[in-house]
Amino acid sequence: MRTTDPATDLTNDAFLGGQLTLTQPASGYRAGVDPVFLAAAVPAQSGQAVLDLGCGAGAAILCLGRRVRGLRLVGLERQSVYADLARHNARMNALAMTVHHGDLEQMPAALRQDRFDHVIMNPPYFRRDRGTPSPDTIREGALGEDTPLTAWLDQATRRLLPGGHMTLIQNAERLPEVLRAMDARLGSVVVKPLCPRVGRAASLVIVQARKGGRGAFRLAAPLVLHQGDTHRTDCDHYRPEITAILRDAAALAIA
Amino acid sequence: MRTTDPATDLTNDAFLGGQLTLTQPASGYRAGVDPVFLAAAVPAQSGQAVLDLGCGAGAAILCLGRRVRGLRLVGLERQSVYADLARHNARMNALAMTVHHGDLEQMPAALRQDRFDHVIMNPPYFRRDRGTPSPDTIREGALGEDTPLTAWLDQATRRLLPGGHMTLIQNAERLPEVLRAMDARLGSVVVKPLCPRVGRAASLVIVQARKGGRGAFRLAAPLVLHQGDTHRTDCDHYRPEITAILRDAAALAIA
Repeated sequence: MRTTDPATDLTNDAFLGGQLTLTQPASGYRAGVDPVFLAAAVPAQSGQAVLDLGCGAGAAILCLGRRVRGLRLVGLERQSVYADLARHNARMNALAMTVHHGDLEQMPAALRQDRFDHVIMNPPYFRRDRGTPSPDTIREGALGEDTPLTAWLDQATRRLLPGGHMTLIQNAERLPEVLRAMDARLGSVVVKPLCPRVGRAASLVIVQARKGGRGAFRLAAPLVLHQGDTHRTDCDHYRPEITAILRDAAALAIA
Repeated sequence: MRTTDPATDLTNDAFLGGQLTLTQPASGYRAGVDPVFLAAAVPAQSGQAVLDLGCGAGAAILCLGRRVRGLRLVGLERQSVYADLARHNARMNALAMTVHHGDLEQMPAALRQDRFDHVIMNPPYFRRDRGTPSPDTIREGALGEDTPLTAWLDQATRRLLPGGHMTLIQNAERLPEVLRAMDARLGSVVVKPLCPRVGRAASLVIVQARKGGRGAFRLAAPLVLHQGDTHRTDCDHYRPEITAILRDAAALAIA
């Protein structure tokens, strides 16, 4: 699945059952299954435009570009090493993608004038003001937050076309903060819990909302990742619908 | 299960498999299963004090008093007809309960000086500013909100002892409002979704929090009410753990 290049400390990792290969730093922030779930949950249709805020090496938006053909793919990334990797990864996978190097709190002018059908994001899971920062500055820049969630949600909302969808994945512990960070411009909010096994609390949540949506809030049934009630072996036994998402690029039904 | 008394338009209804009988108005707000789930979710122990804000005819707090013996039971109810029924129902079931007639936004002096290990509540599910009010004024007073959720949560928090638990049940659509209405005095928040069947969105949520709690937010696994994937007959087939709660006064594990 993965080949390492000790000369540059980069690895090549297979996603979507080998349909996508991503070059990532061997250490630091590395995409796992979370951006794949995020991409699977986006109800994008061919011809639409998608912005990934904080796209990292491009895992989420490139997974989406692989599943749905004919999208206009745009990423914004604050750390230049990841912005460069995202451009490299798009080329390597023959997907057209524009990557802007910049901070969402100082939105590049080109993006300020652009609007999207979908904005997706995987904001940092941990708050900088709690816990210990990682000594790895690149990893810390990706995992530890210093941009508040309200800024992420505000910028996502501004970049959306009327009726456009915001989709994010986040640590379940921060769901109240996510909900608080959304204002009245977003509606028809759906929360999809992801839990490791039947009967367990959610570990992650996918939150989706529509700009100008007027539908009631929905707390959807959880997506259960693993088979069985307990973790019996070191080998992960994903449920069949999870394998379909991770390996066959199936869509994830939110509602 | 129910006997009607046409002379007074009241009914006597059996709860907890007949362990509790409640007199309720034949029309207007009538307790169903929701207050029974609320009562089942309260981690009360003998010797503790419990306040039910907006106790109605006493369904939730009397179910709790039946399940856990030796509690000090106190209710606050704005509508005198329900306050009187709650007193009657406590007597009829040989449970000691003090019922205050008053508004939570003008808390009676006796309650302002009191503190509780548990505050429970089942606030109105519908916002007065949306939808059509019920022409039945007593029913509307119980179901249609004109006290904002922030006032319910604020008053509940004030009445709690340090470390005390707030437990409420609410329409799942209003979860974001409930979370927004809680401030930093409450922590260790747990949301327990209640959903009609496996794979369905939550219809209700039980929300529990601790005064001064510092635990992370938890989105617990849903409690599934009915067996089967679809509603096949008019007869409700509750799952065995639900029957245990509704009929045998079993506790509902939140975490």
